[in-house]
Amino acid sequence: MTLALTMGDPAGIGGEIAVAAWRAGAPRFVALADPDWLAAHGAPVRVVAHPAEAAAVADAIPVIAVPLAAPARSGHPDPANAAATIASIERAVRLAQSGAVSAVVTSPIAKSVLQRAGFPHPGHTEFLAELTGVPGQQVMMLACPELRVVPVTIHVSLRRALDTLDTTAIVETARTAARALRRDFGVASPRLAMAGLNPHAGEDGTMGTEERTLIQPAIDALRADGLSVSGPWPPDTMFTPRARSAYDVAICMYHDQALIPLKTVDMAGGVNVTLGLPIVRTSPDHGTAFDIAGRGIADPASLLAALRMAEEIVAHRAGMQEK
Amino acid sequence: MTLALTMGDPAGIGGEIAVAAWRAGAPRFVALADPDWLAAHGAPVRVVAHPAEAAAVADAIPVIAVPLAAPARSGHPDPANAAATIASIERAVRLAQSGAVSAVVTSPIAKSVLQRAGFPHPGHTEFLAELTGVPGQQVMMLACPELRVVPVTIHVSLRRALDTLDTTAIVETARTAARALRRDFGVASPRLAMAGLNPHAGEDGTMGTEERTLIQPAIDALRADGLSVSGPWPPDTMFTPRARSAYDVAICMYHDQALIPLKTVDMAGGVNVTLGLPIVRTSPDHGTAFDIAGRGIADPASLLAALRMAEEIVAHRAGMQEK
Repeated sequence: MTLALTMGDPAGIGGEIAVAAWRAGAPRFVALADPDWLAAHGAPVRVVAHPAEAAAVADAIPVIAVPLAAPARSGHPDPANAAATIASIERAVRLAQSGAVSAVVTSPIAKSVLQRAGFPHPGHTEFLAELTGVPGQQVMMLACPELRVVPVTIHVSLRRALDTLDTTAIVETARTAARALRRDFGVASPRLAMAGLNPHAGEDGTMGTEERTLIQPAIDALRADGLSVSGPWPPDTMFTPRARSAYDVAICMYHDQALIPLKTVDMAGGVNVTLGLPIVRTSPDHGTAFDIAGRGIADPASLLAALRMAEEIVAHRAGMQEK
Repeated sequence: MTLALTMGDPAGIGGEIAVAAWRAGAPRFVALADPDWLAAHGAPVRVVAHPAEAAAVADAIPVIAVPLAAPARSGHPDPANAAATIASIERAVRLAQSGAVSAVVTSPIAKSVLQRAGFPHPGHTEFLAELTGVPGQQVMMLACPELRVVPVTIHVSLRRALDTLDTTAIVETARTAARALRRDFGVASPRLAMAGLNPHAGEDGTMGTEERTLIQPAIDALRADGLSVSGPWPPDTMFTPRARSAYDVAICMYHDQALIPLKTVDMAGGVNVTLGLPIVRTSPDHGTAFDIAGRGIADPASLLAALRMAEEIVAHRAGMQEK
């Protein structure tokens, strides 16, 4: 199995954490990147033409060349390199679609840099959904060893999250999460914990009614599917160690309800997994970190966890197919 | 120094955790409670007429008698005992106001039980603000050794929190928090971290504008007071261990933004401290737990922490006065 690792923004920390993850014994990956740029981060690289050649490369990082248009300067993103950043993603996806790589692990991009260069997508994940022909079906899971969370609404204002949350979105997100737990994580009978939206889950309607009008109907529909779903839970008490032990994934109503506990529990090792795509895609749960790029202090833990999780998901899927 | 401990709902876990905290070496307290009820939880009790007598009671829990109207049954709250629950709170507050006790530590009440008996207040804290003549000025702080959080909006729906959040409320809450850190917690130059409201703190206005329209003006006003205020921070990354080390209190925009990280970090030992009252008041950060009351499994850690924090606050205030 060979994974594809995209370049991300070459001015970010992607290069140095790729090198650090490789040195730390990451699963085999081929980088879709500018070879000189990657080598400049202090690792031997070997240019290959196809991922199949990567298995024979033991003492260097195998690289499929995606040349930069301008020299990369850590901490100073350059829209001139946006095309290479995008090309790296596109090639990785095509390799995954053809089966030449088993999964795509993406390095951080800076949305604003790409958008200045004409990138029309709201973000990385939406772009991947477009490329793989399933626009709008992507679901974000954040996972660390202690906790998995899936937000129903994501990168919108809190007010817009309230305005757009509906039973259909909750049900579809939860179904995608349940399918992924079975297929990708080896959880035969996933236990879903549904968060409430309001303090104390509304406390019998005295502090909000969405638990009754939107969330409970979603729980009912999911149970009718035969899924194990508990809740709606008071959001503040559902992420304690004891509470976490009773479920496999928390379905959350908005971004920070999911991300605050995940990052509070494990800042360094969280992995972003995109569910609902025909390919396997993980990424580290952090950004380009332009402020520290090039200083050699970036923590590769999340990238390493993302590479390992991609490998595990691929193994689980292969196991499922054999059965 | 003697603290006053209220009875709370006698059908809850208040009695058993009071006994457990006393056995665990809690700071000296006098219980405002039904003596027979407390003794039934397995500790010797000594009825006293005044808190001053408590210092001479070494081998029993000193109790100022507040008789129940009906026998208490664990797990089965009885509105017939609402009057005694309320009387316990009122007597504790009067003792604190007169200086006969140094602080009030409240045991959990069940708002719905009291309200069925005619209790007109939205909650415990609002009642205490009424009793002490500062209605509407109460501010809730939740504190554990790793983190202090203060929500600006509290027990309202998330939608109502968005609709009512304003710069004045943020400024007044933060000022109260800063004063309390100086006076009650011995933090000479408190560092306040202001949370954003939206994912990524709005990401330059692309995911919400309240950071610019409501929160930044509050930060500006507080800095004009000479306060050290950082933010607005992306809510999901501000509660990691590294981020927490850079501030003394997080000012949060809504209930779960404050309570999710606090309870995720420390479920058992969190303490609720009411700021803005003329008396010192702490309480455990949990409810009556009717579902486990009487089974001897309730964890006294939060009550013990609440008693100890009350003692520390009183000591800090005394130290400030001596200077």
